[in-house]
Amino acid sequence: MRLLEERIRADGKVKDGSILKVDSFLNHQMDIGLFEEIAKEFRRLYGHCGVSKILTIEASGIGIACLVAREFKCPVIFAKKTKTKNIEGEVYTSKVESFTHGRVYDIIVSKEFLRAEDRVLIIDDFLANGAALSGLVELVTAAGATLVGAGIAIEKAFQPGGEMLRARGIRIESLARIKSMGKDGSIEFC
Amino acid sequence: MRLLEERIRADGKVKDGSILKVDSFLNHQMDIGLFEEIAKEFRRLYGHCGVSKILTIEASGIGIACLVAREFKCPVIFAKKTKTKNIEGEVYTSKVESFTHGRVYDIIVSKEFLRAEDRVLIIDDFLANGAALSGLVELVTAAGATLVGAGIAIEKAFQPGGEMLRARGIRIESLARIKSMGKDGSIEFC
Repeated sequence: MRLLEERIRADGKVKDGSILKVDSFLNHQMDIGLFEEIAKEFRRLYGHCGVSKILTIEASGIGIACLVAREFKCPVIFAKKTKTKNIEGEVYTSKVESFTHGRVYDIIVSKEFLRAEDRVLIIDDFLANGAALSGLVELVTAAGATLVGAGIAIEKAFQPGGEMLRARGIRIESLARIKSMGKDGSIEFC
Repeated sequence: MRLLEERIRADGKVKDGSILKVDSFLNHQMDIGLFEEIAKEFRRLYGHCGVSKILTIEASGIGIACLVAREFKCPVIFAKKTKTKNIEGEVYTSKVESFTHGRVYDIIVSKEFLRAEDRVLIIDDFLANGAALSGLVELVTAAGATLVGAGIAIEKAFQPGGEMLRARGIRIESLARIKSMGKDGSIEFC
């Protein structure tokens, strides 16, 4: 998606050759006009797949997921990273190792909201090592729901997550796939 | 807002007389059609205030904030609850005591995205003790920005946050104000 690639080139900042900061428009400050264009692109890609639910993970996936859900006219569920007092009863759970935070945490969704009859589109802002996406796929599988695919804003294609998950037969559509980032701040797309 | 009150009556669940579970439509599973109506109501209330930025807090404020920002055609910033590797440099910070989680945490926003010239509308899903909202107000004050007001989906008016913050001169618009909740699951609105 040219618009997103151009925005990454203009406003993304490469740190230490492997971290891409896009917090001016994607995951701290959020450009909702851009999110609407991203959402339209995912509707173009997945619009005929009978999606009944968008699944994402807190926190930075939620914004994009909500705009995507607006296009698909279906609800969003976001997987939560810790068990709070407000979630009780039966939940599906899986483990995620965070690259950003350097720790392992549980993610959960309430069984009430992820059903066997659901056709699920997973939405997230980033795909790198695939830890979060694997965890979300595991939740969908546990529910016996149908995984339509995943819609990712930015994939770091030089990290193994995308390849690993596509090899498992999962459809993944990433709107900007980064081939390499240089220590000089340069970004090359696939 | 009648639509939201009716939804709370239909799908909200009162636990132990003081916890209101609305995770089927507001803060775990999210009804985006409802969020669009909420967003329109906030535009009606704050549409002529020159809002340049929506501020919220992760995670459950983000969805509503994004739909509100779509109405206002301005960016969202969400305050983060922990300092991650991806945020560096100068941040504004304040402390929040979580009623739900029973702990105190720091919230931060990057100084880059909250400026003195900004006119800020704070959006959140709940107002009860006012801890999160107070923390967000503190961030706006620290930035020297103008606080236009706060837009809250559900206010527990029997808890002290709303009264305390309105007494400080802050404009707060809550779309559903709960006067009381009974141990029998009943809900009375103001």
